[in-house]
Amino acid sequence: SSGSPKFTSADDEFTFQPLGRIQYDFGTTSGSSYDGAGVGDRNISGTEFRRLRLGVQGQLTDPILYKVELDFANSDIGVRDAYIATQKDFALGQGVVYLGNKFADRSLDGRTSSKYIWFLDRNAVADAISPESGYYNMGTSAEFYGDDDWHLSLGVSKGSFGGSDNDSDNLTVLSRGHFNPLVTDNSMLHVGAWGFYEDFSRGKQPELTDNLRFASHFNDNVRVYGDTVEQPETSTGYGFELAGLTGPVAASAEYGRREIDSRVAADTDYDAYSAQIGYSLTGEAFGYSTKNGVWSAPDIAEPVTDGGWGAWQVMARYDALDYENSGNYAGGTGHGTTLGLSWYLNNYTRFMLNWINWDTHNRVPIVGDPGDREFIGSDDGNTVSARAQVIF
Amino acid sequence: SSGSPKFTSADDEFTFQPLGRIQYDFGTTSGSSYDGAGVGDRNISGTEFRRLRLGVQGQLTDPILYKVELDFANSDIGVRDAYIATQKDFALGQGVVYLGNKFADRSLDGRTSSKYIWFLDRNAVADAISPESGYYNMGTSAEFYGDDDWHLSLGVSKGSFGGSDNDSDNLTVLSRGHFNPLVTDNSMLHVGAWGFYEDFSRGKQPELTDNLRFASHFNDNVRVYGDTVEQPETSTGYGFELAGLTGPVAASAEYGRREIDSRVAADTDYDAYSAQIGYSLTGEAFGYSTKNGVWSAPDIAEPVTDGGWGAWQVMARYDALDYENSGNYAGGTGHGTTLGLSWYLNNYTRFMLNWINWDTHNRVPIVGDPGDREFIGSDDGNTVSARAQVIF
Amino acid sequence: SSGSPKFTSADDEFTFQPLGRIQYDFGTTSGSSYDGAGVGDRNISGTEFRRLRLGVQGQLTDPILYKVELDFANSDIGVRDAYIATQKDFALGQGVVYLGNKFADRSLDGRTSSKYIWFLDRNAVADAISPESGYYNMGTSAEFYGDDDWHLSLGVSKGSFGGSDNDSDNLTVLSRGHFNPLVTDNSMLHVGAWGFYEDFSRGKQPELTDNLRFASHFNDNVRVYGDTVEQPETSTGYGFELAGLTGPVAASAEYGRREIDSRVAADTDYDAYSAQIGYSLTGEAFGYSTKNGVWSAPDIAEPVTDGGWGAWQVMARYDALDYENSGNYAGGTGHGTTLGLSWYLNNYTRFMLNWINWDTHNRVPIVGDPGDREFIGSDDGNTVSARAQVIF
Repeated sequence: SSGSPKFTSADDEFTFQPLGRIQYDFGTTSGSSYDGAGVGDRNISGTEFRRLRLGVQGQLTDPILYKVELDFANSDIGVRDAYIATQKDFALGQGVVYLGNKFADRSLDGRTSSKYIWFLDRNAVADAISPESGYYNMGTSAEFYGDDDWHLSLGVSKGSFGGSDNDSDNLTVLSRGHFNPLVTDNSMLHVGAWGFYEDFSRGKQPELTDNLRFASHFNDNVRVYGDTVEQPETSTGYGFELAGLTGPVAASAEYGRREIDSRVAADTDYDAYSAQIGYSLTGEAFGYSTKNGVWSAPDIAEPVTDGGWGAWQVMARYDALDYENSGNYAGGTGHGTTLGLSWYLNNYTRFMLNWINWDTHNRVPIVGDPGDREFIGSDDGNTVSARAQVIF
Repeated sequence: SSGSPKFTSADDEFTFQPLGRIQYDFGTTSGSSYDGAGVGDRNISGTEFRRLRLGVQGQLTDPILYKVELDFANSDIGVRDAYIATQKDFALGQGVVYLGNKFADRSLDGRTSSKYIWFLDRNAVADAISPESGYYNMGTSAEFYGDDDWHLSLGVSKGSFGGSDNDSDNLTVLSRGHFNPLVTDNSMLHVGAWGFYEDFSRGKQPELTDNLRFASHFNDNVRVYGDTVEQPETSTGYGFELAGLTGPVAASAEYGRREIDSRVAADTDYDAYSAQIGYSLTGEAFGYSTKNGVWSAPDIAEPVTDGGWGAWQVMARYDALDYENSGNYAGGTGHGTTLGLSWYLNNYTRFMLNWINWDTHNRVPIVGDPGDREFIGSDDGNTVSARAQVIF
Repeated sequence: SSGSPKFTSADDEFTFQPLGRIQYDFGTTSGSSYDGAGVGDRNISGTEFRRLRLGVQGQLTDPILYKVELDFANSDIGVRDAYIATQKDFALGQGVVYLGNKFADRSLDGRTSSKYIWFLDRNAVADAISPESGYYNMGTSAEFYGDDDWHLSLGVSKGSFGGSDNDSDNLTVLSRGHFNPLVTDNSMLHVGAWGFYEDFSRGKQPELTDNLRFASHFNDNVRVYGDTVEQPETSTGYGFELAGLTGPVAASAEYGRREIDSRVAADTDYDAYSAQIGYSLTGEAFGYSTKNGVWSAPDIAEPVTDGGWGAWQVMARYDALDYENSGNYAGGTGHGTTLGLSWYLNNYTRFMLNWINWDTHNRVPIVGDPGDREFIGSDDGNTVSARAQVIF
């Protein structure tokens, strides 16, 4: 059930529902062992809205659906889901087609809603092994949800927001599937795979540089960054997912790899992997959806707002990112161990606490950063971060 | 009827209704015969959200009305209608007064809602023969809707969004009227005229440059552009409208002209005209409102969502724009022939397909464009564009 | 009662309510006696949206509350209230705790909602004696509303919107309290005090410059500005409030002072005071809330929309701001006398008219302004401004 009212016309043909999501985060980093200039900039603390979303979704006579969701957290407009969709039932399951901007289907953690990710940030595979189009697919996509615990999706993207309309857009093709070889009342096994192909526009993508924050989203200075790829031509990426849960225990592991071909230089590639395990102190299973193979909300036995304890989960994760895999490319490396606590007060409210021990090694300056923030070399330290979340 | 719920208080004094509009466009241009540098930049393709609007409207006890509508398509904030209004019935018809930002009444195609325009973009008269304040009037405006198929409006604008508040705003006065000499069950004749006067602020408008995209909105490189007018002082513009429909056939023609007086140079002027004809393959009449003289939604006999064909329309349009009319001013010229197909699935959903054959001739570089995009000279080519639209 | 519908679930556990606020302002300044270049830039006129807000608030099972309110008036995103809250009743009154971004509790006029301030802009104490975090507190805050006409609040802020996440945020602690020694059916006396302490981040706040508009918000050129404080370290501020009303008469006075300590230069301080008096032509009392000690909406006996006169109020205010109090700091001074008329048509609609006689004296150029707007020296003049407002 949702925390916002859903309005339905008398004939059930029209629906309308507002949507919202508030994530307010705190982050503090300490113990950076960096020995260059600007070490003080690595041990910083503060708060930010990580997500601040409002939106609407509805039906305009069956089977025409729409959704618009905007994110205002950065004091600018982030368009998230914004699409027209239609769906149809088939003998093997349900098919849905989307036209517009749609949350992309890539990686187990990457496809899991930010409402239900285990930690404050997604894992290194989801964040780093990504096409330039990122977490959203602007174009068309189709998903098929099999009746027997599997799904398959295909997305084709060619478009961008706020672009100058002076160049062709990149073309991206993305696919993911999963199936559950085992599903019982209190356990499941998940196997998944995904891949993407990008054909870069010369004008829109004259160069390409990737990076990843390793000490919470708040800290923009502690990142692992790749070297710049000049004149990228195409890119391919893929990943594998394995997950399972039994009773109060859940675990997953992911691996991903991306290769980038340049028009003028040697090809390069990088990879990442991540594994996580969780235990529910209050006994209920971790939430999981067999429909599209993602983590979801736990089933909270006794919400705090009914006098209970809510749901308490403890989690641990290890992340590794290697931007220098190919050797042709002066990319950095990073590793992180995260311990997490997640407290669902009820279905709409959640508090999270994370502790990250990270180490990073960079070989080139961050593109576009001022000279006093050229954090080349090795560093390690600790970050504590926390989140207050409501969804409606 | 609307695709969103309208809430009304028990005493009918309060109403509240959310509003939305999604237009997602594809555009691809080919065959540019431009022989200068950067010809590749003219044959580009991609997608964009053309409009992505959310808003609310309502009544705060009769007769106080309000509306706020925002456009997020460009990843920034575009404020559209944002006003306080009141209305009153008189012997001859109904009067409405608006305070704030209001969709301006100028040109048949210009005043037609983007929900119901025949092609993806409005015609050259509506887009080019415009005051600097554009499609919205920030100030006050009044409209009178006569009982006998006529209307007259007057708007006074002095204001701007996101301005630096360091200078006085331009003053713009705008008026339009129409009447229908013939209205029957399956036909009508429309005659309209409009004009505007602008008094430019020295500080806000030290110079003025106009331009118009000719190969779909997506393609920012194929434009016709005027020369820069230094220190404009005042401007006047006017236009004439003729339209009619009978059975499944509809047609209209518009002419417009604008003159700009400079404080330091010779006056200049330019003009545009456009004619269009449409035929409904499914037989229903083209939508038209005798209230304010604009194109509107067709009456769809059998929506696709009820198992029918919806409404299918085919259209053709010719546009001509002449920025060099006066000779004092090195403006460009452009011509375009557009063929269009419009498919209304139901009252809320529409797909459109356009093919444009365009030719442009420019004499000065586009202001502010980089050197490799100074498209001086002649060019012609073809553009295919498409739109998916839902409104609620 | 509110102008927007409030939706409540059948079990009363969930509520959802949209919110909106439109303030459309006109301003014209004349008679500037400035004898430097650019005097014409001081006598300017135009209109702007002062506030254009949409938001939602609700409950996600008792006692979890949320609110999100955004301002679009400047064609960018201004996040206003955006918080998760909870409340609890105690023997002495009610306590509320907020997490996120919350309208700060500082100064009588400063805490009064912009819906109910007497004049178009708040007084000099509220606007100038402010921490750098401004009118909102991003962090956590707690308010306690005593049953016997008093309240006390404490806010701790460390966060910012749209920040680069490259530096620690400033830390700000803010507190305010009030009590009403006298409350009868048609009179009250108000005593209040507030204070704040700021600890500046070296990275986020390498320097600090304050300024205040004196000729309406529209006119950005007529301001009083302080000199730049290099490397500020900490700041403290405080203020006192006195107010009362009896029958149709209301009055208040405020004083505030802020001291800023620099890491590299002498400390500086500045102060402001303001006094205002109002009379209700239609007889009803000025609105005031004993809960948190702020001005509020009047109780309108006969709304215009019911055929009455609404509520008419006339007001006068004197403001003084002295940025050069300490002598260590080449700040400016300003004085203003404002006469105001406020017409509440009903609880949702209000028109306001202000006339301001102002004089300013500046000793340094405005930071960041172009050379032709370096308004150093003395000036005085008159400004007429007006507002149309609806709230829902």
